[in-house]
Amino acid sequence: MTAGLPDVVVEPLVRAALAEDLGRGGDLTSIACIDAGARLSARFSSRRAGVVAGVGCMRLAILALDPQAHIEILKGDGARLAAGAAIAEVEADARALLSAERTALNFLGRLSGIATLTRAFVDAVEGTGAAITDTRKTTPLLRALEKHAVRCGGARNHRFGLDDAVLIKDNHVAAAGGVGPAIRRAKAAVGHLVRIEAEVDSLGQLDEALAEAPDVIMLDNFSLEDLRAAVARAMGKVVLEASGGVSLTTVRAIAETGVDVISVGALTHSAPVLDIGLDVA
Amino acid sequence: MTAGLPDVVVEPLVRAALAEDLGRGGDLTSIACIDAGARLSARFSSRRAGVVAGVGCMRLAILALDPQAHIEILKGDGARLAAGAAIAEVEADARALLSAERTALNFLGRLSGIATLTRAFVDAVEGTGAAITDTRKTTPLLRALEKHAVRCGGARNHRFGLDDAVLIKDNHVAAAGGVGPAIRRAKAAVGHLVRIEAEVDSLGQLDEALAEAPDVIMLDNFSLEDLRAAVARAMGKVVLEASGGVSLTTVRAIAETGVDVISVGALTHSAPVLDIGLDVA
Amino acid sequence: MTAGLPDVVVEPLVRAALAEDLGRGGDLTSIACIDAGARLSARFSSRRAGVVAGVGCMRLAILALDPQAHIEILKGDGARLAAGAAIAEVEADARALLSAERTALNFLGRLSGIATLTRAFVDAVEGTGAAITDTRKTTPLLRALEKHAVRCGGARNHRFGLDDAVLIKDNHVAAAGGVGPAIRRAKAAVGHLVRIEAEVDSLGQLDEALAEAPDVIMLDNFSLEDLRAAVARAMGKVVLEASGGVSLTTVRAIAETGVDVISVGALTHSAPVLDIGLDVA
Amino acid sequence: MTAGLPDVVVEPLVRAALAEDLGRGGDLTSIACIDAGARLSARFSSRRAGVVAGVGCMRLAILALDPQAHIEILKGDGARLAAGAAIAEVEADARALLSAERTALNFLGRLSGIATLTRAFVDAVEGTGAAITDTRKTTPLLRALEKHAVRCGGARNHRFGLDDAVLIKDNHVAAAGGVGPAIRRAKAAVGHLVRIEAEVDSLGQLDEALAEAPDVIMLDNFSLEDLRAAVARAMGKVVLEASGGVSLTTVRAIAETGVDVISVGALTHSAPVLDIGLDVA
Amino acid sequence: MTAGLPDVVVEPLVRAALAEDLGRGGDLTSIACIDAGARLSARFSSRRAGVVAGVGCMRLAILALDPQAHIEILKGDGARLAAGAAIAEVEADARALLSAERTALNFLGRLSGIATLTRAFVDAVEGTGAAITDTRKTTPLLRALEKHAVRCGGARNHRFGLDDAVLIKDNHVAAAGGVGPAIRRAKAAVGHLVRIEAEVDSLGQLDEALAEAPDVIMLDNFSLEDLRAAVARAMGKVVLEASGGVSLTTVRAIAETGVDVISVGALTHSAPVLDIGLDVA
Amino acid sequence: MTAGLPDVVVEPLVRAALAEDLGRGGDLTSIACIDAGARLSARFSSRRAGVVAGVGCMRLAILALDPQAHIEILKGDGARLAAGAAIAEVEADARALLSAERTALNFLGRLSGIATLTRAFVDAVEGTGAAITDTRKTTPLLRALEKHAVRCGGARNHRFGLDDAVLIKDNHVAAAGGVGPAIRRAKAAVGHLVRIEAEVDSLGQLDEALAEAPDVIMLDNFSLEDLRAAVARAMGKVVLEASGGVSLTTVRAIAETGVDVISVGALTHSAPVLDIGLDVA
Repeated sequence: MTAGLPDVVVEPLVRAALAEDLGRGGDLTSIACIDAGARLSARFSSRRAGVVAGVGCMRLAILALDPQAHIEILKGDGARLAAGAAIAEVEADARALLSAERTALNFLGRLSGIATLTRAFVDAVEGTGAAITDTRKTTPLLRALEKHAVRCGGARNHRFGLDDAVLIKDNHVAAAGGVGPAIRRAKAAVGHLVRIEAEVDSLGQLDEALAEAPDVIMLDNFSLEDLRAAVARAMGKVVLEASGGVSLTTVRAIAETGVDVISVGALTHSAPVLDIGLDVA
Repeated sequence: MTAGLPDVVVEPLVRAALAEDLGRGGDLTSIACIDAGARLSARFSSRRAGVVAGVGCMRLAILALDPQAHIEILKGDGARLAAGAAIAEVEADARALLSAERTALNFLGRLSGIATLTRAFVDAVEGTGAAITDTRKTTPLLRALEKHAVRCGGARNHRFGLDDAVLIKDNHVAAAGGVGPAIRRAKAAVGHLVRIEAEVDSLGQLDEALAEAPDVIMLDNFSLEDLRAAVARAMGKVVLEASGGVSLTTVRAIAETGVDVISVGALTHSAPVLDIGLDVA
Repeated sequence: MTAGLPDVVVEPLVRAALAEDLGRGGDLTSIACIDAGARLSARFSSRRAGVVAGVGCMRLAILALDPQAHIEILKGDGARLAAGAAIAEVEADARALLSAERTALNFLGRLSGIATLTRAFVDAVEGTGAAITDTRKTTPLLRALEKHAVRCGGARNHRFGLDDAVLIKDNHVAAAGGVGPAIRRAKAAVGHLVRIEAEVDSLGQLDEALAEAPDVIMLDNFSLEDLRAAVARAMGKVVLEASGGVSLTTVRAIAETGVDVISVGALTHSAPVLDIGLDVA
Repeated sequence: MTAGLPDVVVEPLVRAALAEDLGRGGDLTSIACIDAGARLSARFSSRRAGVVAGVGCMRLAILALDPQAHIEILKGDGARLAAGAAIAEVEADARALLSAERTALNFLGRLSGIATLTRAFVDAVEGTGAAITDTRKTTPLLRALEKHAVRCGGARNHRFGLDDAVLIKDNHVAAAGGVGPAIRRAKAAVGHLVRIEAEVDSLGQLDEALAEAPDVIMLDNFSLEDLRAAVARAMGKVVLEASGGVSLTTVRAIAETGVDVISVGALTHSAPVLDIGLDVA
Repeated sequence: MTAGLPDVVVEPLVRAALAEDLGRGGDLTSIACIDAGARLSARFSSRRAGVVAGVGCMRLAILALDPQAHIEILKGDGARLAAGAAIAEVEADARALLSAERTALNFLGRLSGIATLTRAFVDAVEGTGAAITDTRKTTPLLRALEKHAVRCGGARNHRFGLDDAVLIKDNHVAAAGGVGPAIRRAKAAVGHLVRIEAEVDSLGQLDEALAEAPDVIMLDNFSLEDLRAAVARAMGKVVLEASGGVSLTTVRAIAETGVDVISVGALTHSAPVLDIGLDVA
Repeated sequence: MTAGLPDVVVEPLVRAALAEDLGRGGDLTSIACIDAGARLSARFSSRRAGVVAGVGCMRLAILALDPQAHIEILKGDGARLAAGAAIAEVEADARALLSAERTALNFLGRLSGIATLTRAFVDAVEGTGAAITDTRKTTPLLRALEKHAVRCGGARNHRFGLDDAVLIKDNHVAAAGGVGPAIRRAKAAVGHLVRIEAEVDSLGQLDEALAEAPDVIMLDNFSLEDLRAAVARAMGKVVLEASGGVSLTTVRAIAETGVDVISVGALTHSAPVLDIGLDVA
């Protein structure tokens, strides 16, 4: 089970999502069709194999509507799921459980989808020494949760935002008059706990960057051949990150070039949902 | 161009997303590498063909960091984009524009991805008389935006939440003792501006539902043959909605059975991002 | 007892109301005059006959200041109260109870006032087949609570906001070039779970609207005679809603014209408070 | 025109109210029936005589949806209105104006209702030397606005919350062992800018309170005779406030007893709305 | 122990502070270095003598991350601490406790610093009859907490904000055309529970103010000689407040002039932190 | 002028601070004493020498109450101020300016106090090669602003929160079974853009840490002699940070030991306010 975010961070998101679904009138259907006080036992399970993430969101969503609900977690965040695997069993007020169901599943399906896709990338590079990492291409307002889901899938996080690492991209290079001057400006500006990464788009620019010794160099859209050349030139002095158009088809070959890190935007921007459902016992 | 949501609804989301990315220290890289007061001209364009949505989010993100930015929208929400098509041209403070870039693209790419996938489904059923609709399987906190993107793609919205229509599902049926009693309870409970939909999973249950005359009946995971039978039995008295495992491969055949509406969860829960970028002039 | 809104919707309102009253210094009087740790037993009761609503708000207000308070609800939301009837008995920290008192009573009195006035309208039309409904003339920020109070009084809710039903009014008619074109535009624009209502101000306009078969037609400020004529012309094909200047004096006669629904703005915009107090045992 | 609250206080309330009405889908009707870009000229006017309050809320609601709207205020907060009087003229985007209409009117009608009722009480005591004041029986979340409306009606504000003055009521008296000890405890506890008021329910208790010289003594539900006796005993040494069951019928007689202040809960808890409408030019 | 603010006021501040520290990724260090489920016993104690304030914030910070934490308060708000004194003992989830530590200490240290400095001023004037009071020179967003800390240090609060008392300063005097007219305008404008204070900067202006009988007169930057003269002239008819450049060196002499109140901005704007730490048992 | 935080981060704090001061009734004094529409010209200036920070907060506070205010900034964030130096000149609505004054000054004074103290530390180590840095001992809710003020004073920022760098302290060492295992666990857990710092309290522990090659080692409360020994042993392979009880008296000697960074909690937890005032022209 992967270390999660504290409830104090997650709970406001879950409550806002419930309010979004309940609207100004509450769950018309459950109030109409279900007797007050009725109880329901049900099970969250996955229709497909994958990796689960977001169990804490599911739990908080149900408890927000029924603080006395009994929830038994069978598979915690980061666990691999076989198709059909049960994730949790719940016994709760029937109206509350059905009112929370969609919100709980929206978190669980989306985050598990990210964890599942991440795990596929991580497994694909197993044994190569390359690490898989995410990007900042996350859903607005859900970055903390989605970065958590990436960790559940076995990958590492790239920076969390604009303020926890420097990442010099082409427009910064253009503004600073070259990747070298840009790195020097960054070194002069930031504190001793901030790593500096520079993006380069050619071997020539790589050499210019290497001369300034940043912590990390991102090799943007390099061919396999150029990636290998970059690894050779860097001689282990900086961390090399391959980036750009990485897919499950291409990732292993990229990893085998010897780069240290491969960043994959698709982990968060294009992961399909993992199909999880709630089945009444 | 599709009618958008008012800024008063969108702006808090955009500002929260910017705050999420700026964190506690702001954009370390742009501050370090770009001179204060420098200006930048750039263009948002799509690397692939698709349908754009979220232009208003992009605009608000940039204006939040540079209220004097000049933004010319070339393709409004709902417009079809050829690969390479320009969406907007921007001239703004360089630091502000680069600091807003990722947030703007995260909204634009995700919402355009939804609009693009939606449009593919809508086009696939063209001429059949069936309408495509979304579900409540949306990203938590972004439902209003994602439902808007679905409209940009040419489809209709299913209900917005638990309080604007009744949707009787299997668990409600079980609790009420049958789909008939459930519909009767709903009719007795809700106001005159609330539509009532009931989900059925067999032709037998369809007959039971038809006897109570709800506004809409959802045919859940029906075979094509059963869908046709359902259309025949309903005789136009209720709206029929096909649901469950609809894909681009299967949607036209489903539409050709004569159902009125086809709901597709994938529109919002599994749409890949549309690859949009910001290119400096 | 009427089905309530989930605490997740109500609690932020209650906490904000407490914060509004406590200000930046807390309850100066209770801190000064009451010993820390003192306990108090008290009873909420109504000085006049009526219908109670908002018991959940009262409960949450007290629990917010004393999570260990013991609160026994004697009359739940929707219950009829005789003058003097006890609503709840509370045993709590004395400072906490007195600090929460005004906030609890402000919710309880206002919502019970709405429920009480609503019940008077509902009782006045008993046996006629007409339903009483509210409007969107609610207190800003309290719509969910006030619509709940209307349900507690035995009436139905009109739409919750601008997005859960179409209501074509005179200005929309003018903009669209007639009630007929307006209804056609609405049908072409909205999803299959949205009801469409059109307001008409004359029998001539009623005919124009009937030709387009909306779900509901609102008869605005019609005389009793015209209401009867409208009922005759509609022949049960649409729901007819009478609206405009409805009072307890006039409502029964309106109901007896055969209209289906009577909407009453006064339920929420002009209901006097129900006089409820907290009496120490 | 009465001095208003700064927009920084009012604007979050107005925006929250708009969001409440727009929901997750925006104004379905206006989007469907009105062409994008259409303009509308309209006038806010009162159907009945009264006193206006909340003009700033109306203005902010419209500007929130159309920042380019042209709004000319004809009657500012506190102005007396004849029946039919125009309050403001607006020229704005048609969709924006109609979407904001109900929110604007809900603020305007409610606050003007309070100002109108307040003015009736103030006029009723004219020339007596007694001041009319409100109470804390306000709508949750709207206290600042409602207290402002009371000022627009020509009355004074009682305390704003629990922290800006001491008000010793019967339960505090009971807890402290008498009104005398309660006043002494309050004097010992609070700062030099906090006024102390004590409620008494008999002439005997008045004497006990007078001996401790609070700033204000509230005479709760005193007969006219007892009010006169209280005025005589107080000899101008403290401010005397009459409270309890004050109506337009009784208020002048109360004022003529010589009390300084008369507090009226009905100003905020039971004022009917002032009927204000928006008429298209 | 000093009466505290209700949790309903404090908790949102504590949760926001935790979110500020946890950021988008949580406590990287504790998650990496500490096993899930490990427990920790520790003690909050002060490295220096002082007065404690903010114990409730500390408690809420820890409970927010571990609702099952066991916290025993040894010294409540307002208690004097010897150097080394234990304030509280905690047994909690190790990760949760270490993640909450800095937030808890930031509240505790800052508020105890204020209480400690306040106590020094209060002790310095002991026996003189003068009261020490704070000002509005507080940390933005923390006024309620800082004013509470001042009370913990034994002093009284000046007004809480712009709306709970009138304080006429030089610019108001200039605008109104003199301190006399300013006081008269204030008396005509505000309610009967609002105290009026006027600032004067000379004995001449004092006389002008005394003629209008405000509740309080602030003597701004008066010499000791002028303070004594002011006390003589006021003859006990108004409360006299000395203000301006008050330090621990000068405060007793000021108090001995006979003024009633001495306001000290430094209590909140320049109090050094009290050095409190968390020591593992 | 130092690069500031975007308004989108600062504005919510400023507006919340204004709301805190305006309360539920607004600025009673200015409304009473100043005519509506009156204008005022005034100047912010510092009574003492220092470094200014927070000019943007001041500007936003005034504009929030008077969007048409004219504000000319004479000294931007980071500028050194002589005693008496003017910071900005303002011409604005008189009521608005006086209502915003205290909030503007509370931000300006506090942040300039931090910048001023920081500058004193930075100047004290000039020429030594050591950098001054802050800590996480900041005011709850104001970390972004206070870290900005530290930059205005010429120092660097330590980590912004728990999630942007690893800082292994004594309790983590104890939990992990030594500083070596703790560093190894951290390296195994975090991404490639996260720096790892370990705190040591002796030369022996330094050696253990050096063997694991973290990015930074914090030397906690080392004597000058031990600091020199540490510098010798580290041989430039890691960044060395001195911490613990650093004062203006001791900082230069510490810097001269050759450490790279000196962190000073007092910068944010104990900086006295810079005395800045608003003088009417």
